[in-house]
Amino acid sequence: MPTVPLIDQNAASAEVRAVFDDIRATRDTDWINNFWKALAHHPPTLRRTWDSIKEVMAPGALDPLTKELIYLAVSVSNGCQYCTASHGAAAKRLGMSPQMLGELIAVVGMANETNRLADGYRVPVDERFENLF
Amino acid sequence: MPTVPLIDQNAASAEVRAVFDDIRATRDTDWINNFWKALAHHPPTLRRTWDSIKEVMAPGALDPLTKELIYLAVSVSNGCQYCTASHGAAAKRLGMSPQMLGELIAVVGMANETNRLADGYRVPVDERFENLF
Amino acid sequence: MPTVPLIDQNAASAEVRAVFDDIRATRDTDWINNFWKALAHHPPTLRRTWDSIKEVMAPGALDPLTKELIYLAVSVSNGCQYCTASHGAAAKRLGMSPQMLGELIAVVGMANETNRLADGYRVPVDERFENLF
Amino acid sequence: MPTVPLIDQNAASAEVRAVFDDIRATRDTDWINNFWKALAHHPPTLRRTWDSIKEVMAPGALDPLTKELIYLAVSVSNGCQYCTASHGAAAKRLGMSPQMLGELIAVVGMANETNRLADGYRVPVDERFENLF
Amino acid sequence: MPTVPLIDQNAASAEVRAVFDDIRATRDTDWINNFWKALAHHPPTLRRTWDSIKEVMAPGALDPLTKELIYLAVSVSNGCQYCTASHGAAAKRLGMSPQMLGELIAVVGMANETNRLADGYRVPVDERFENLF
Amino acid sequence: MPTVPLIDQNAASAEVRAVFDDIRATRDTDWINNFWKALAHHPPTLRRTWDSIKEVMAPGALDPLTKELIYLAVSVSNGCQYCTASHGAAAKRLGMSPQMLGELIAVVGMANETNRLADGYRVPVDERFENLF
Repeated sequence: MPTVPLIDQNAASAEVRAVFDDIRATRDTDWINNFWKALAHHPPTLRRTWDSIKEVMAPGALDPLTKELIYLAVSVSNGCQYCTASHGAAAKRLGMSPQMLGELIAVVGMANETNRLADGYRVPVDERFENLF
Repeated sequence: MPTVPLIDQNAASAEVRAVFDDIRATRDTDWINNFWKALAHHPPTLRRTWDSIKEVMAPGALDPLTKELIYLAVSVSNGCQYCTASHGAAAKRLGMSPQMLGELIAVVGMANETNRLADGYRVPVDERFENLF
Repeated sequence: MPTVPLIDQNAASAEVRAVFDDIRATRDTDWINNFWKALAHHPPTLRRTWDSIKEVMAPGALDPLTKELIYLAVSVSNGCQYCTASHGAAAKRLGMSPQMLGELIAVVGMANETNRLADGYRVPVDERFENLF
Repeated sequence: MPTVPLIDQNAASAEVRAVFDDIRATRDTDWINNFWKALAHHPPTLRRTWDSIKEVMAPGALDPLTKELIYLAVSVSNGCQYCTASHGAAAKRLGMSPQMLGELIAVVGMANETNRLADGYRVPVDERFENLF
Repeated sequence: MPTVPLIDQNAASAEVRAVFDDIRATRDTDWINNFWKALAHHPPTLRRTWDSIKEVMAPGALDPLTKELIYLAVSVSNGCQYCTASHGAAAKRLGMSPQMLGELIAVVGMANETNRLADGYRVPVDERFENLF
Repeated sequence: MPTVPLIDQNAASAEVRAVFDDIRATRDTDWINNFWKALAHHPPTLRRTWDSIKEVMAPGALDPLTKELIYLAVSVSNGCQYCTASHGAAAKRLGMSPQMLGELIAVVGMANETNRLADGYRVPVDERFENLF
C-alpha cells in the first residue's frame, strides 16, 4: 500500500472525530499525528488501537517513560521508521535525554547480537532460569 | 547447529577461564550460565561479547533495571527463548515484579501490532518528529 | 520467561473467570486453550486481547476462514510455534483442507523469498502502485 | 545495494525478453513492473522467480484473491514496501475493497501482537493442536 | 501446525518418489532428510523447492561452500532451528571448520547489531554507496 | 529517531576523532562514512562498535570477502537499507562481481523461503544433524 491519504478533522466521520477528540483530550494537545489520520481509513481499527494504546501506556507498575523506552526499543529493533520517530519523540517529551537514547540504541544492538549468538549455538535454557513466575 | 556441548571451567582454556573468572567476579556469583559455556567454543567471541555486555549494561543515564527491561523486550520481540529466559531472570533479580513483566509483554505486543499498522498504511513521518537530536 | 504456570478455571480470579466464560460462550465450547491460561497472569492483557481478537476475527468484509488463513500465514512467517499450531487448528475447524494448508505455506515461503529480492535490489515502487486508496 | 538500474525491454537479452514476454502474455498486459526489471540483472533468478510465482499464485484449493491477501499480509508483516505496494495493487485488481484491506491490516497487526504474547509467556502447545495432519 | 507426520519412500506417491530419487542421485546418498519428507505433503512445493535449491546452490560465481555459509548465516539470523541444523551439517560436509562456524556466528551477530544501530539512528545512505551496479 | 545530524571531523570531540583516525588508518582512506558520523553521538558505542567490527572482520578462518558476503546477506535479509548499501560497497571493493551479488541475493531469498517452509511444517531436526561440534 502506497502512502495512504491522511484523513483530518474536517473530512472525518463522527466516529473518527470522537476518537480524535479523545486523543486530543487525553494528550492535552490540539494536534493529531499522521498515524491516527491514516488509521481513520478503518474506523474500528482506529478506535480499538487508540483504546488499547491508552490502556497499555497508562502509568502502572512501569512508569510512562519506561514504557515509551520499551516501545521505542522494539520499534528500533523492527526497523519501523514511523514508530521509531513517533515513540522517540514521545520518549523525549517524557524526559529521555540524548545520552539515554544512545544507551537504549546500544542495548537494542547488543540484544540483537546476542539473540543470534544464542540461536546460532542453540544454547539450552539453564534450569534455574525456568521458574520465573 | 545442534545444541552445542557446553564447555565448563575444567575443560576451558586459560583464555576462557579468564573470562569466566571476570564474569563471576563482576556478578559476585560462582555460577556461569550456559550462554557463556557455549560461546567458549569461540574464545574471541566469548571475550568480546562479555566485554561489550559488561560495558553496555553498566549503570549510566539508564539504570540497570531499565536496561534489562529493554534487553528483555527485544528478546521477547525476536522470539529468542534463551535470551527471554536469561534476561527475564536478570530483570527479576533487579526487581522486576510479575506485574511489571505483564506490562512489559503487553507493551511489546502493542509495539509489534502498531509497527505493522504503520508499515501497512505506509504512514509518512510527521515533520515535527524529524528533529529529535 | 520460562514456561509460565497455566492458570485454570479454579485458580482464576473473578475477573479472569469472566473472560474465560465469554471465550467459552463465544466459541460454544467448554475448553480454554493454554494461551488464555497464560495470559491470565496479567488480567488486563487477557481481557484486552480477548476483546480485540473477538472484534478483529468477527465476520466482516473478509469471512472468518480468510481471516484465520491470514493470521496463520503471519504466524508461520514469524516462526511462532504456538500461534501456528493454534491458528492452524482454528483454520482447520473452519474448513481449511490439507491442500489449502500446503498452498498457504507455499505462498508464505514465496512472499518471504521475493520480499528479500525486492529489498536486496532496493527496487523503487512503480508510480502506478502509489494510489491504492 | 543502492537502487538498481532497471533493465527494460530494449536493453534486455533474449533470455530476459522471453521472460518479459511470458509475464505480459500471462497477465494480459503490455506493462512490466520494476521488480522484474531489477531481477533482469540476474537472469536465472528472474526466470526461476517468475516460474515459481506463476505456479504458486495460480488458482488451486485457494482462489487467486485469497492467495494475494496472504502474500500481502506477509509483506506488510515484513515491512517490505515494494511488496506491500505491488501485491496491494494486485489484490485490489482481484477485488480487494478498502474495507477488506483495513481488516487485513488489522489481522496482521493482531497476529504480530499475539505472536509476541505467546513467545513472551512461552506458552506450551496444547496437545489437541498437535495433530493437524 | 504441529509436527507433520513424515512421508517416507514407501508411503510416497510416484510424483514424490521421483523427487526423492533425484535428491538421492544428485547428492550421491541413499538418505532423505526430514525437510523433504515433510514437504511431500504438498508435492508441487516439494518439486518446485527441490528444483530451486538444486539450481541456486549449484556452483557458479560463488562456490558451494560460500553459498552454504550464506544460507546458514540467514538461517541463524532468522532463528530457524531446522535450517540452522541442516545447513550447518551441509556446510560442515563441504569443509566448514568449527573455527569458521565460530567466525560466521560472530559476523551474523555483529550484522544484527549494526543493522539496528543504522536503523535506530536512521543513517542516510552515503552517495558513494549508491552506484553498485 | 529522525535522520540524525552527522558529526564530522571538525565538530568531533577528541574521543571521537581518535576513532575516526583509527578508521582512516585501518582502511587506508581519508573518508568516513555516515554510519560512524551518526554513532559519534554516543562515543562509547562508536568506539566499541568500531573495535568489534575491526576484530570480527579481520581475516581469520574465513577470508575478508566471505565475511563481507555473510554480513551483506544478513543485511539484505533484515531489509536494512544502509547496511545493504555500505556492505554491498565493501564486498564490491573486495572483489564481489555483479554475478556473485546476483547469486548471493538468490541464496538469501531461497533461505528465507525454506526457513518458513521448515517452520510452517514444524519439521523435527534429523538426529544426524544433532552433532555438529
